[in-house]
Amino acid sequence: MQQLHRASRFNRRAIKVEQATKLVLESVAPGQQEMVPLWKAGGRRLAESLCATSDWPPFARSGMDGYAVRSEDTLQASPDSPVKLRVLNPVTAGGIAAGGVELGSAIRIMTGGVVPCGADAVVMLEQTTDVLLDGLAAVQVKQAALPGQHIAQPGEEFRLGSLLAQSGTLIRPGHAALLGTFGYARVPVFTKPRIAVIATGSELIPVTAQLGAGLIRDSNSGMVAAMIEQSGGIPLQLGCKVDQVEAIVAALVEALDQADIVITTGGVSVGDHDVMAAVMRSIRNHDHDQSEIEASAKPKTVGDHSTVSLPSENLHSSVKEMADPFQSNYEHSTKVLQASLDPSTRLLFDKVAMRPGSPTSAALVNGKLLVALSGNPGACFVGLELFVRPVLLRLQGVSMEEAMPRTVTAILDADWDKGSPHERFVRTRLYTADSILHADPLAFNKSSMLASIPDADGLIRIPAGPRGAAKGEIVEVLLL
Amino acid sequence: MQQLHRASRFNRRAIKVEQATKLVLESVAPGQQEMVPLWKAGGRRLAESLCATSDWPPFARSGMDGYAVRSEDTLQASPDSPVKLRVLNPVTAGGIAAGGVELGSAIRIMTGGVVPCGADAVVMLEQTTDVLLDGLAAVQVKQAALPGQHIAQPGEEFRLGSLLAQSGTLIRPGHAALLGTFGYARVPVFTKPRIAVIATGSELIPVTAQLGAGLIRDSNSGMVAAMIEQSGGIPLQLGCKVDQVEAIVAALVEALDQADIVITTGGVSVGDHDVMAAVMRSIRNHDHDQSEIEASAKPKTVGDHSTVSLPSENLHSSVKEMADPFQSNYEHSTKVLQASLDPSTRLLFDKVAMRPGSPTSAALVNGKLLVALSGNPGACFVGLELFVRPVLLRLQGVSMEEAMPRTVTAILDADWDKGSPHERFVRTRLYTADSILHADPLAFNKSSMLASIPDADGLIRIPAGPRGAAKGEIVEVLLL
Repeated sequence: MQQLHRASRFNRRAIKVEQATKLVLESVAPGQQEMVPLWKAGGRRLAESLCATSDWPPFARSGMDGYAVRSEDTLQASPDSPVKLRVLNPVTAGGIAAGGVELGSAIRIMTGGVVPCGADAVVMLEQTTDVLLDGLAAVQVKQAALPGQHIAQPGEEFRLGSLLAQSGTLIRPGHAALLGTFGYARVPVFTKPRIAVIATGSELIPVTAQLGAGLIRDSNSGMVAAMIEQSGGIPLQLGCKVDQVEAIVAALVEALDQADIVITTGGVSVGDHDVMAAVMRSIRNHDHDQSEIEASAKPKTVGDHSTVSLPSENLHSSVKEMADPFQSNYEHSTKVLQASLDPSTRLLFDKVAMRPGSPTSAALVNGKLLVALSGNPGACFVGLELFVRPVLLRLQGVSMEEAMPRTVTAILDADWDKGSPHERFVRTRLYTADSILHADPLAFNKSSMLASIPDADGLIRIPAGPRGAAKGEIVEVLLL
Repeated sequence: MQQLHRASRFNRRAIKVEQATKLVLESVAPGQQEMVPLWKAGGRRLAESLCATSDWPPFARSGMDGYAVRSEDTLQASPDSPVKLRVLNPVTAGGIAAGGVELGSAIRIMTGGVVPCGADAVVMLEQTTDVLLDGLAAVQVKQAALPGQHIAQPGEEFRLGSLLAQSGTLIRPGHAALLGTFGYARVPVFTKPRIAVIATGSELIPVTAQLGAGLIRDSNSGMVAAMIEQSGGIPLQLGCKVDQVEAIVAALVEALDQADIVITTGGVSVGDHDVMAAVMRSIRNHDHDQSEIEASAKPKTVGDHSTVSLPSENLHSSVKEMADPFQSNYEHSTKVLQASLDPSTRLLFDKVAMRPGSPTSAALVNGKLLVALSGNPGACFVGLELFVRPVLLRLQGVSMEEAMPRTVTAILDADWDKGSPHERFVRTRLYTADSILHADPLAFNKSSMLASIPDADGLIRIPAGPRGAAKGEIVEVLLL
């Protein structure tokens, strides 16, 4: 009986990482759009597919500075027997020759200029010499020009209406050139999603505060906010909350009101004061009938830690003191929370088959996604990359498939001899040597450790199993 | 004689790409610094090296939820013969046990909690069972705890004063966690450099304008501006200017006044109307004595295009008409420009041994860097990556070495059978298969072509030579 409960503490069943990522992705949809100046659109995502507004090039363009010629006139040209072509200088209107290239003649042309009618090739200036022919300006050509030489034909790169970039595309500097060419001075992009960030933990103090005994600074909120900014979202930082369900529920209600999605850190594990675990349990129970809620909300076996770890009457009274305030808060606050939940509310998962961060949880609450990340910085970071960044991309119009974390394969540079019942994500540096990609796991890789987070280029995915992975093996790496 | 001039048109001698990049890097220095909130500092560069303000962890922290124990008390524990430890519940102040773990006892502890004195190990909650011992609360442990188990020792990750991140570091989300942990709520970063952008070309119209015969939209300004934004700078877009030295000189004077560095596009080649080439020649001549200026500013041989391509009196009068307004502008405007140049002004280079973009030029003008990029979008893009991005990084405190373009090696996926007297940069997609990095050159790779610019992950460096590079070869690729 205890073993059974131990295996299903809080009835939390681990789901696969891909499944968890898909569940969060399916619970959001691309947001609104807005118009922004093209050159300010870098890093945003296109909200519509954009097409060519003309052929490109729009006219036959010279690729070189030189002379526009008729290739047939140069057929016999050679260094020993150069061909002389009379230089015409027709009337020009707006830089365009009104006349064309006639038999035995040439017209001076600049790079990017309109190739005059009659001409079918351009000879580079450097390959010509100016001469006189019957006392008039002429040019000497020493080599046969090939038809089409140094001319970009109209529509060679794009036909009117052809796709330039599809909805969801990340706008890069090259898009400014491409879209600008076709007159897109302003472009439709998805609005920046608004993401509420709440840190939980009675041991937390703001980054600005002085350390005291047993206290640590809330470093997760800043990391989450920075990642949201980096991924094109707007973080709404709601600060750090003590481990009281009441405080958390109030913060969640505010957050759900203001934001498109809500991220919390901490309190997801099996500890007595793990408030987000309690909130998730409350959400899970929302769909159940009331008797089930009562049954599951109370401890099943005295002292069995694999069920709800609330102390029973016959435990030492001081232990009871420690947990009781939480219990009474819990009962009151979960009623408040449950009363405000609409019928669509449901738990997505409360355990993921991964290390670190297995207690990472997610729910759909009143139509909005709530992701509860682990409070350990390493686990929080992994959860961010696996479940939050993809959601941010999806909210900005990226397809489900492309929103999934990008992966590469690499050679593992060092043994990772730590097995795990769940697959493990190991922070790593990436580099190439002789075209081979290598993953060099970073030191300080424990869930609680910070040092390797800023330096990581990727997360090595070590498959579940007793043996880990050996140096020289090909491993999958999520790119950061 | 003609061959000699042909080889040294405008006396432009090509220098190696690395040398050119070093020259521009040496002509700038890291800028001012400012304080910004940590979570808003993502993508900026640290302006000072920051160190740990305490040991980390600051106290012995539990890595697990469970019981703090003395490992020696558990030495004999086994599943068949579990050890019972009395659960103490000492007075707590701010969540910290005021008492310690005594012989044969344990204290409940949460993840991240302070390990009470006396304890040297933490046993996971899941590996314990609550029991009674003489009618009082106790916990049963079935396995010997190892000394130090699940405890992060003070200073394990960082010692007070140890380096967290050095000046010039790109701030990533992980830095928000790391620096926030040590109380850096605001961090010193380099100010965003201000970069003026001027497009030259009489054929250019703003992106907002309708196409007309022979006209194209200025797509380069937007691309340059977007790249500056992407690299942490502030672009000052001064618009597109016609090919008149006077107009360009006026724009340059304004730009040098407002910006940290100035970027122009177009007009760098050998064409009659290539104004930036004329400006660079004027700058080059600035240091020469006046007789040298006169000599080099005038055409040497009638009709020899490999010298200065200004028409002489005995060429056809209509050819003269085309070039003369430029010539008179040139003489006047270069005097204006030269009069405003301080003694430090000097040409850095006016030709680079590369394709595309060999006429790319740079000068130090009144102490500020002027980079003149090619107007062809493909060449402009390559010039941006090779000479502008490194400078932007350097202005933001990145070391000379790290500001150089990052390269990897990859297997070339397709023959590139086009030889070149200069090394060539080919836009490519990058991907890995079985841990091997592949470079798959993109179609539409000509200098004048746009289509492959947004899609490029890198630039393959094809060595100079007649043969190009073959499928399957290892090539060097600059990362974009």
